[in-house]
Amino acid sequence: MLFAVKMDVDLPVEMDPEVKADTLAREKAYSQQLQRDGEWVHIWRLAGRYSNLSVFDVADNERLHEILWNLPLFPYMNVEVTPLATHPSDIALLRA
Amino acid sequence: MLFAVKMDVDLPVEMDPEVKADTLAREKAYSQQLQRDGEWVHIWRLAGRYSNLSVFDVADNERLHEILWNLPLFPYMNVEVTPLATHPSDIALLRA
Amino acid sequence: MLFAVKMDVDLPVEMDPEVKADTLAREKAYSQQLQRDGEWVHIWRLAGRYSNLSVFDVADNERLHEILWNLPLFPYMNVEVTPLATHPSDIALLRA
Amino acid sequence: MLFAVKMDVDLPVEMDPEVKADTLAREKAYSQQLQRDGEWVHIWRLAGRYSNLSVFDVADNERLHEILWNLPLFPYMNVEVTPLATHPSDIALLRA
Amino acid sequence: MLFAVKMDVDLPVEMDPEVKADTLAREKAYSQQLQRDGEWVHIWRLAGRYSNLSVFDVADNERLHEILWNLPLFPYMNVEVTPLATHPSDIALLRA
Amino acid sequence: MLFAVKMDVDLPVEMDPEVKADTLAREKAYSQQLQRDGEWVHIWRLAGRYSNLSVFDVADNERLHEILWNLPLFPYMNVEVTPLATHPSDIALLRA
Amino acid sequence: MLFAVKMDVDLPVEMDPEVKADTLAREKAYSQQLQRDGEWVHIWRLAGRYSNLSVFDVADNERLHEILWNLPLFPYMNVEVTPLATHPSDIALLRA
Amino acid sequence: MLFAVKMDVDLPVEMDPEVKADTLAREKAYSQQLQRDGEWVHIWRLAGRYSNLSVFDVADNERLHEILWNLPLFPYMNVEVTPLATHPSDIALLRA
Amino acid sequence: MLFAVKMDVDLPVEMDPEVKADTLAREKAYSQQLQRDGEWVHIWRLAGRYSNLSVFDVADNERLHEILWNLPLFPYMNVEVTPLATHPSDIALLRA
Amino acid sequence: MLFAVKMDVDLPVEMDPEVKADTLAREKAYSQQLQRDGEWVHIWRLAGRYSNLSVFDVADNERLHEILWNLPLFPYMNVEVTPLATHPSDIALLRA
Repeated sequence: MLFAVKMDVDLPVEMDPEVKADTLAREKAYSQQLQRDGEWVHIWRLAGRYSNLSVFDVADNERLHEILWNLPLFPYMNVEVTPLATHPSDIALLRA
Repeated sequence: MLFAVKMDVDLPVEMDPEVKADTLAREKAYSQQLQRDGEWVHIWRLAGRYSNLSVFDVADNERLHEILWNLPLFPYMNVEVTPLATHPSDIALLRA
Repeated sequence: MLFAVKMDVDLPVEMDPEVKADTLAREKAYSQQLQRDGEWVHIWRLAGRYSNLSVFDVADNERLHEILWNLPLFPYMNVEVTPLATHPSDIALLRA
Repeated sequence: MLFAVKMDVDLPVEMDPEVKADTLAREKAYSQQLQRDGEWVHIWRLAGRYSNLSVFDVADNERLHEILWNLPLFPYMNVEVTPLATHPSDIALLRA
Repeated sequence: MLFAVKMDVDLPVEMDPEVKADTLAREKAYSQQLQRDGEWVHIWRLAGRYSNLSVFDVADNERLHEILWNLPLFPYMNVEVTPLATHPSDIALLRA
Repeated sequence: MLFAVKMDVDLPVEMDPEVKADTLAREKAYSQQLQRDGEWVHIWRLAGRYSNLSVFDVADNERLHEILWNLPLFPYMNVEVTPLATHPSDIALLRA
Repeated sequence: MLFAVKMDVDLPVEMDPEVKADTLAREKAYSQQLQRDGEWVHIWRLAGRYSNLSVFDVADNERLHEILWNLPLFPYMNVEVTPLATHPSDIALLRA
Repeated sequence: MLFAVKMDVDLPVEMDPEVKADTLAREKAYSQQLQRDGEWVHIWRLAGRYSNLSVFDVADNERLHEILWNLPLFPYMNVEVTPLATHPSDIALLRA
Repeated sequence: MLFAVKMDVDLPVEMDPEVKADTLAREKAYSQQLQRDGEWVHIWRLAGRYSNLSVFDVADNERLHEILWNLPLFPYMNVEVTPLATHPSDIALLRA
Repeated sequence: MLFAVKMDVDLPVEMDPEVKADTLAREKAYSQQLQRDGEWVHIWRLAGRYSNLSVFDVADNERLHEILWNLPLFPYMNVEVTPLATHPSDIALLRA
C-alpha cells in the first residue's frame, strides 16, 4: 500500500555539531535499510529546500506510523502523509 | 530531470456527457503515450480525491510545460510543480 | 485499517429538486449499506455545517478510494483523508 | 454530547528527559482514566504525526474545557474543537 | 450552553428579487422568534460586511445544529461555530 | 460602540512561576475592573483553548486600543479586533 | 474616528454594460459626496489591482457600516475593516 | 509616489529594558524626522495590535527600501508594502 | 523603477472562441509593444501553469497601474505586484 | 534553464556580530562569483523586506539545488523555487 510523504526538516542553527552529525548518520542508515527492505521505495530531495518527497510501500497505516515515528530526525520534522491508490490511466494496469 | 506534479481536477457538474467522455478518453491516451515514452514515470491517484500525484522525467522546464499545457484536462486543473533532485540518502547512489 | 474522512458538501442552490432528492436518497442508502457492512464505522454531522466527519475501516487505500469515489455526492464534495493508527494511550491496548 | 478534538503536540527538543517522561506518564494515566469513565470515547494517532484525533462524550462545553485545560500536555498542544451532532444517515437512528 | 457563531452571507447578485425579499423576511422572523425564546441571545452585524456574530444559548449540539440548519439563509451562508465556556475572570462568578 | 475581540494567549512554558502568577493576578483584576465599569461587557473562554472572546463597549477606537495595549498579558497575546454594528434583525430594535 | 478599509472589486465579466456603467457612475458620485463631506478622507488605488485602500473618519461603527453597506458596488466587493488609533510617534501630537 | 506599509512589531518579552528603551527612542526620532521631511506622510496605530499602517511619499522604490531597512525596529518587524496609485474617484482630480 | 508582477490567468472554459482568440491576440500585441518600448523587461511562463512572472521598468506606480489595468486579459487575471530595489550583492554595482 | 527563486532571510537578533559579518561576506562573495559565472542571472531586493527575488540559469535541477544548498545563509532562509519556461509573447522569439 503506497503513501506519499513530504518531510520538511528544521534543524536548530545552534545544534551541537556532534549530535547533528550523529543524528544525520543514523537517519541515513535508517532510511537506507528501509530502502533495501523495499518499504521506502522513493526518496527525492526538493530542489532548494531541506525537504524530501518520499513514497512508502507498507502493509498498513500502523507500519507507516512506526517507520515515521522512529526517524532519527522526526523531532525536527514536519510530516505530511497522503494515501495513494492506483490511477486508472496507469499503464501498469494494461500489463496486468 | 525529475519533477513532482500534483494535479487537482475540477470538472463542472453540468458538463456535457459526450464532451466529458471524449476529454477523459483523450486525457487517458495522452497520459499513456507519455508513460510509454518514459517521460511520465509515475502516476498515482490521491485516495478520496479527484487528483493525482505524478513524477515526470523530462529534458528541461520547456518540455515539462509543453506536456502539462497540452493535457486535455488542463483547463479544468490546478497544477503544482516541484523540481526534484537526488537525495543523498538514496541507495541508488551506492550502486553508481 | 482506519481513516478519518471529512466531507464538505456544496450543492448548487439552483439544483433541480428531483435530481437533488434522488441524489440524497442514493447517498443515504449507499452510506447505510457501508455502515451495515462494517466499513463505514462512524458518521457525525459537524454542528452548523453541511459537512460530516466519518471513520472508515477498510482493507487498504484502494478500497477507501473506491468507496469515496462512488459516493453519489462525490462531485459536490471536498474530501480530506487522514490515515489513523493506534494511539499508545488507547485502553483497548490494555485489554489485548 | 460529542466533540471531535484534534491535538497537535510540540515538545521542545531540549526538554528535560525526566520532566518529559513524567509529563507523558501523567498524560497517559489522565487519558486512560477518562476513557474508563466513558468521557474520552475514541483516541487515534494521526499516522506520521505527533497528533491525535479524539472524540469526547461530555455533559457540556464547561466539562469539555475542564478536561482539555487539565491535560498534562496542554501547554505543549494546539487544540481544535469541533462540536458534533447526529448525522441523518447514521444507521443508529434506524435502531432507535 | 453557549456557542459563538459567525455567519457570512453570500447572495447571488442575480437572485430573483421576490425570492430574495421572501427569504430575508423569513430569516428575520426566524431569528427574532429564537431571540424571543432566549436561544439566540446576541446578534451583531460585522461593520462593513454581510456577516453577523451571534451567541446562542442552547441545550446541546443537536439543538444548535437544528437551529442553524433551518436558517432560511443557510444555503447561502458560511458558518463557523465556536463552543464557549465560562471565563475564570468573569465577574458573574463573583456574584454566584 | 461595540467591538468583538479575540485574544489568544501564548505563555512561554519556562516562564518564572512568580512572574506568571503575578501577571495573571494583575490581568484578572484589570479585566474585572473594566467589567465593573461597563466597558468590558462579555468575556467567554473558548472551550479547549487558551483564548477568550470578549465584547467591549467603549467610546471610540482610541479607548479600545488603550484598554488592550495595557492588558498585563498583552505581550503574550495575539489580538483580533472586529468592529460591531446593530443587526437589523436584533429584537432590541423593536423595543426602541 | 478613523478606519482603514480595503475594498476588492470583482465584477462579473459578462455584466451588462449599461448596468455596469450605471453602477460605476453611482459609485463614483457616492464616493465623491462622502469625500466632500469629510467622512471618506483618503482613497487610493492599489497599483495593478481592482482594489482600493481608503480611510474613513466617521462618528462610530454604525455610521461606518451604513456608508459601506450602501456602496453601489457593495454586492461585488470583499471588504476588510481595520480600526485605527493615534500612533504615539505621530508628529501631530507634538503640535497639539 | 505613495506606498502603504503595514508594520507588525514583535519584541522579545525578555528584551533588555535599556536596549528596548533606546531602540524605541531611536525609532520614534527616526520616524518623526521623516514625517517632518514629508516622506512619512501618515502613521496610524492598528487598534489593539503592536502594528502600524503608514503611508510614504518617496521618490522611488530605492528610497522606500532605504527608509524601511534603516528603521531601528526593522529586525523585529514584519513589513508589507503596497504600491498606491491615484484613484479615479478621488476628488483631488476634480481640483487639478 | 522595477516591479515584479505575477499574473495568473483564469479564462472561463465556455468562453466564446472568437472573443478568446481576439483577446489573446490583443494581449500579445499589447505585451510585445511594451517589451519593445523597454517598459516590460522580462516575461516568463511559470512551467505547468497559466501564469507569468514579469518584470516592469516604469517611471512610477501610476504608470505601472496604467499598464496593468489596460491588459486585455486584466478582467481574467489575478495580479500580484512586488516593488524591487537594487540588491547590495548585485555585481552591476561593481561596474558602476 | 531558468528558475525564479525567492529567498526570505531571518537572522536571529542576538546573532554573534562576527559570525554575522563573516556569513554575510561569504554570502556576497558566493553570490557574486555565481553572477560572474552566468548562473545567477538576476538578483533584486524586495523593497522593505529582508528578501530577494533571483533568477538562475542552470544546467538542471541538481545544479540548482547544489547552488542553493551551499548558500552561506541557507540555514537562515526560507526558499521558494519556481521553474520558468519561455513565454509565447516574449519578443525574443521574434528575433530567433
